[in-house]
Amino acid sequence: MARILDECTDEAKLARILMRPGFNPKDRRMTDSFESILDDHSIEVVVECMGGLEPAHEYIVRALMSGKHVVTSNKAVVSTYFSEFVSVGEKYGGTLRIEACVGGGIPWIAGIEKAKRIDAIIGFSGILNGTTNYIVYSMLKDGTDFAEVLGKAQELGYAERDPSADIDGLDVRAKTMISATVAFDVRCTDLVPTSGIRNLTRRDLAFFGNHGRTVKLFGHGVCKDGRYAVAVEPVAIPMETLEAHVPLNFNIATLTGKTIGELTFYGQGAGGDPTANAVVQDILDIAHKNFPTYSFVHKDSQALIYEPELLRSSYVIRTEAPVCDGRVYEPGAYIVRDITALQARELLDEALKSDPTSFMAALGERK
Amino acid sequence: MARILDECTDEAKLARILMRPGFNPKDRRMTDSFESILDDHSIEVVVECMGGLEPAHEYIVRALMSGKHVVTSNKAVVSTYFSEFVSVGEKYGGTLRIEACVGGGIPWIAGIEKAKRIDAIIGFSGILNGTTNYIVYSMLKDGTDFAEVLGKAQELGYAERDPSADIDGLDVRAKTMISATVAFDVRCTDLVPTSGIRNLTRRDLAFFGNHGRTVKLFGHGVCKDGRYAVAVEPVAIPMETLEAHVPLNFNIATLTGKTIGELTFYGQGAGGDPTANAVVQDILDIAHKNFPTYSFVHKDSQALIYEPELLRSSYVIRTEAPVCDGRVYEPGAYIVRDITALQARELLDEALKSDPTSFMAALGERK
Repeated sequence: MARILDECTDEAKLARILMRPGFNPKDRRMTDSFESILDDHSIEVVVECMGGLEPAHEYIVRALMSGKHVVTSNKAVVSTYFSEFVSVGEKYGGTLRIEACVGGGIPWIAGIEKAKRIDAIIGFSGILNGTTNYIVYSMLKDGTDFAEVLGKAQELGYAERDPSADIDGLDVRAKTMISATVAFDVRCTDLVPTSGIRNLTRRDLAFFGNHGRTVKLFGHGVCKDGRYAVAVEPVAIPMETLEAHVPLNFNIATLTGKTIGELTFYGQGAGGDPTANAVVQDILDIAHKNFPTYSFVHKDSQALIYEPELLRSSYVIRTEAPVCDGRVYEPGAYIVRDITALQARELLDEALKSDPTSFMAALGERK
Repeated sequence: MARILDECTDEAKLARILMRPGFNPKDRRMTDSFESILDDHSIEVVVECMGGLEPAHEYIVRALMSGKHVVTSNKAVVSTYFSEFVSVGEKYGGTLRIEACVGGGIPWIAGIEKAKRIDAIIGFSGILNGTTNYIVYSMLKDGTDFAEVLGKAQELGYAERDPSADIDGLDVRAKTMISATVAFDVRCTDLVPTSGIRNLTRRDLAFFGNHGRTVKLFGHGVCKDGRYAVAVEPVAIPMETLEAHVPLNFNIATLTGKTIGELTFYGQGAGGDPTANAVVQDILDIAHKNFPTYSFVHKDSQALIYEPELLRSSYVIRTEAPVCDGRVYEPGAYIVRDITALQARELLDEALKSDPTSFMAALGERK
């Protein structure tokens, strides 16, 4: 980020870098005193890339209370404290910019914000986690097992040592909650039905392939008549869709607006340069005073109601648990028609009790 | 557009509508006097959607000379007079906004402009014409002939009575020139090698299909070391690419930036609502003073050099003309290795002299 700031723009420059106490400074801009940053009135923007909930949450609140703007790439802290940050920012005159939290270098947050200037966003969906896309892509391309690909991804640094945030959908859940907040102006519930791809096997991919489908992990949301729903789940999508052909660790995200229809953004969802690019774009938007306010904090009287019924689909569940009497999809896998994402998650929980290898995916619509 | 302005924003309102002389006004905002619009100092923005070169060119220049901003959806006039409009606008303090000229409701022009704030754009490519995408999509889906699909598209109003602008690539050429100007800061030459899909047959699609490819009409450009090249041509792309799965009359466009890598935008490339959406977005950008200047007019000393060598590829030509001694791709079709887009266009011209049904497509790279 320092390099992109230095080389690519003269509208902002890096003044200070906060380091851990006791760390040996390699650059005269480094400091271990957060207070010295807060007290420096020449600093207008604080960039938070430390990750985790604390002390990131505390530092963001204090920066906003000092009248500074905050740019962050930390999806965990934003999805947890979005409302608080917006309230504090509005009170003290600062703004929070979060482009790097979702979709890396893809202008997804700004794209939603721009569409909303004249359009009502009625839904969104996307492949928002590069690691799981890379895992499925590699399983299909190389015919390898989930565990083998995951191990390779961990070696390459694509996946964390504890892969749960990626493969159980928690990373996508945070990104989906943030997207819903921006798209629908809602304080998003954290009761998001969330399933991952931990139990996805080569054989699952093969039988979905026989039906002209592949499996991708999606975050999606809909908003209708003052109600909304969000979910994170694997979807078995037809091969004729764009999403089926997202390679490697790329991300794709689509919003649906009333006048604009479908609008899709695709690119590098992670990585140093794309993430830094998103952070610097946010800094420039602040410099140009080009950013929206998030007004949902003030709209308690017309707050959206969480309504799981809005997200219904048919599902395929592969399980040896005696939970299904649906139509057979493939030996050992069944179609369950027209249930909500929340009911699907409950059904999967039930199945996992007697068959911990059970896997379930929504059936995406054919175009 | 009037409806979107009225219903979706209170930051701008429609003051006047210019109509043809003698037309019977149905709305009190209608006038047949362009002068009355120029003289009305309460009008800050003129929107030009009349199409064609004249009098659109004259009206845009006069509006800019009156210190007004201009928003236009007219790709023909912009691709022809871009430099003049920028010069006049800079002299009199107005700006020209052109989002609706390329890709309808897709934020492609603004996407390039935003990426350029911190990135060097080294290339772009896209399916920028919905009519030809619809023709190829329908030929494949329904197994119909080119002429039959074209007739149906004309009935539905997707294609013009004279289809040449679409099927010979002239529409894409204008959009490619505009994209190159925005992406590379260049006064784009009109010597763009341009081929269309007029001669594409079901049999061509079938044999490309046998090789795991489909055919789409692309506009593309590259920029490197002070040189640039652009071309419009059919490309036989691998089925594993996103572009191969663009349905109906949708558009897709990708920029490649040095730090951001590939960034792709997909959506409705035409139609009333998406185009109006793009126009109103431009009006709001003017209201928010959020737009770049096109500086290329001042950079004569460092103008980019047009260098056809930058766009090289292998090509497949299906012809009965005795112009090829390349490797056979399919009976009657040959691969010609590593020639420029300009050389390809010359080879096709030569072939068309003795076989007017000849068809040629670049071979897109496998990922």
